[in-house]
Amino acid sequence: MNASAVSATPTLLAPTSEEIFAAHEGGKLRVELSSPIDSKRDLSIAYTPGVAEVSRAIHNDPTLAGPYTWASRLVVVVSDGTAVLGLGDIGPAASLPVMEGKSALFQRFAGLNSIPLVLDTTDVDEIVETLVRLRHSFGAVNLEDISAPRCFELEAKVIEALDMPVMHDDQHGTAVVVLAALTNAAKVVGRDITSLRVVISGAGAAGLAVAEMLLTAGISDVIILDSRGILSVDRTDMYDVKERFAARSNPRNVVGGPVQAFENADVYIGVSSGQVEESLLATMSSDAMIFAMANPTPEVHPDVAIKYARIVATGRSDFPNQINNVLAFPGIFRGALDAGARRITPDMKLAAAHAIAGIVGDDLAADYIIPSPLDERVALAVAAAVMAAVERE
Amino acid sequence: MNASAVSATPTLLAPTSEEIFAAHEGGKLRVELSSPIDSKRDLSIAYTPGVAEVSRAIHNDPTLAGPYTWASRLVVVVSDGTAVLGLGDIGPAASLPVMEGKSALFQRFAGLNSIPLVLDTTDVDEIVETLVRLRHSFGAVNLEDISAPRCFELEAKVIEALDMPVMHDDQHGTAVVVLAALTNAAKVVGRDITSLRVVISGAGAAGLAVAEMLLTAGISDVIILDSRGILSVDRTDMYDVKERFAARSNPRNVVGGPVQAFENADVYIGVSSGQVEESLLATMSSDAMIFAMANPTPEVHPDVAIKYARIVATGRSDFPNQINNVLAFPGIFRGALDAGARRITPDMKLAAAHAIAGIVGDDLAADYIIPSPLDERVALAVAAAVMAAVERE
Repeated sequence: MNASAVSATPTLLAPTSEEIFAAHEGGKLRVELSSPIDSKRDLSIAYTPGVAEVSRAIHNDPTLAGPYTWASRLVVVVSDGTAVLGLGDIGPAASLPVMEGKSALFQRFAGLNSIPLVLDTTDVDEIVETLVRLRHSFGAVNLEDISAPRCFELEAKVIEALDMPVMHDDQHGTAVVVLAALTNAAKVVGRDITSLRVVISGAGAAGLAVAEMLLTAGISDVIILDSRGILSVDRTDMYDVKERFAARSNPRNVVGGPVQAFENADVYIGVSSGQVEESLLATMSSDAMIFAMANPTPEVHPDVAIKYARIVATGRSDFPNQINNVLAFPGIFRGALDAGARRITPDMKLAAAHAIAGIVGDDLAADYIIPSPLDERVALAVAAAVMAAVERE
Repeated sequence: MNASAVSATPTLLAPTSEEIFAAHEGGKLRVELSSPIDSKRDLSIAYTPGVAEVSRAIHNDPTLAGPYTWASRLVVVVSDGTAVLGLGDIGPAASLPVMEGKSALFQRFAGLNSIPLVLDTTDVDEIVETLVRLRHSFGAVNLEDISAPRCFELEAKVIEALDMPVMHDDQHGTAVVVLAALTNAAKVVGRDITSLRVVISGAGAAGLAVAEMLLTAGISDVIILDSRGILSVDRTDMYDVKERFAARSNPRNVVGGPVQAFENADVYIGVSSGQVEESLLATMSSDAMIFAMANPTPEVHPDVAIKYARIVATGRSDFPNQINNVLAFPGIFRGALDAGARRITPDMKLAAAHAIAGIVGDDLAADYIIPSPLDERVALAVAAAVMAAVERE
């Protein structure tokens, strides 16, 4: 296990700056025609006068915009650039390469059309208003890299305002993949997932969404750490979203900081980008599972983590068990759009997590609890599971 | 000439509804990746962690968004659906197939990425505000199918608000192609273009922009007809844009209606979708040139027009001399973007018109005054001419 944890050598994989900038020249997306326009006849079908028939039909029956425009299956990746990767608030222009990459992944793994829209406003109501004005231009919204706690209010308002699938991926994509990994990790160590004691370090978008997902999955003992310590009902320095979590998780009402949180914990989930003392890991249970997901520098290096844990996962592609959102969001949106869903519900997210976990199948092992982000089977399995969940609801 | 004017048979060319709807299934645009994502290494270049280097670089030097994102060469086709083709105010959803077609033409003829954005508001300031909030997402704006007189105010405000090429194609694209056709028509009949007496029927977006373009080209005698008659300084029932044209064109201050307008006119330009009495055409000069551009039904059928004119042009693909905007907008935006222009100026539009006219070259004839909309040479010739105009300015 130790050997496999360091089986890949980051330095060999790391692309050079020259490679990275070369790959970004002109951007990472291209718009192409679905069918060629090579004759006057083609032109009179795709544009005037032929196109007028399609516009007239949609005007008479708005539901025809679904089958006869690209918008109904177009996912917009929307960001205001306030919480981009580990870079923080770098603004809309600088966030664009990340959003282009996200759109590229929607196409690559789910065959969905996707375009980035970056907003030069951080006002939640202005962002909602902008998307409402544009709503006939697209069929789903992936909110991305928006700072907390604004992201919670924004997602709720966009879901309320638009009659289409909307998801803030930094919250729910991460949560779905963590639950998938934890489901398989519990199998490896022979534990009932609902009996696990979980510590989440980081109470931002990802941390709180992971907590929500674990509670939905039946895990009751979830302790959340922010920079000031454990979220508990006794604290008076938390914004409302944190207060609600303090009341719903942490059933033993553990108070204090990392020392109290880690004691006898079975699972550590790091989404904080902070570092974890080795001494804390030593106080975890004998079934310890460590998900150190900070990128590019995990909260604890896998070589160290493995000394105290039976399972180690990171956010990095160059170690085993990579927790990567790309396993979730393409299939979730594909399934929601294929099913004509108007919402992305907790049941759909649970179904997605179980579908991702299921792909591993008989190959399940301590160093293989989650499929590769490049596994072509994942997005379609997730989409199918999400569609089935929509039909059940 | 008569023979050639009816050389094509509309009924044979007309696509069936089945063909048209089949060609629109799923929409007419597709988003593709510029380079493949097939390995973890590709993934780490196009997305995390590699993409962070590009975002950081743009954050430090915003000009790098040009070379390293797709936005700087992305044209958004923007409409509120208030004046779509001959259909009128059919709204944003029903306008989308037309806007998709427009985006497809940008790709097909100029190799530019283009996406449609349709707006569920007809408030000029809200449309401007929306585009300003999204401005880091694209590099140029093609305004399309927006009703007059709102389109004049909207275009002026968007140009003022955005530091990028902006053009309302229904105005300027049409004007550029009409000037190109008229330049060659004048050659065929051996007239100095500036000496021509022109009647424009229709004082909407296209009619007034054509008038502006002809004045810019040195034609002084331009009479504009709206539904109430000739635009003249004596009238008191016109909105401000029309009043300005009445003062600048119509130097003989002709008053009245079609009868007074057509008498001894050399050129009739129909952008009205109304019909023209044959008796009016009979009063035109012996050098008469008739551009009956209403689509799908010309103001006068070419078979009738040719009895009174030396040159006949229409907006239809199934007769000779088709006046089609696709000859202008792809090359104008391509040239403006390639030159890094911040505005689309009258000189750039003049250069575009002359480049389109120039393509015809020695093949110039009464039934070939304008290149085919499918002529691959046009967009690049226009782009080169526009770039040269930018360098001169």
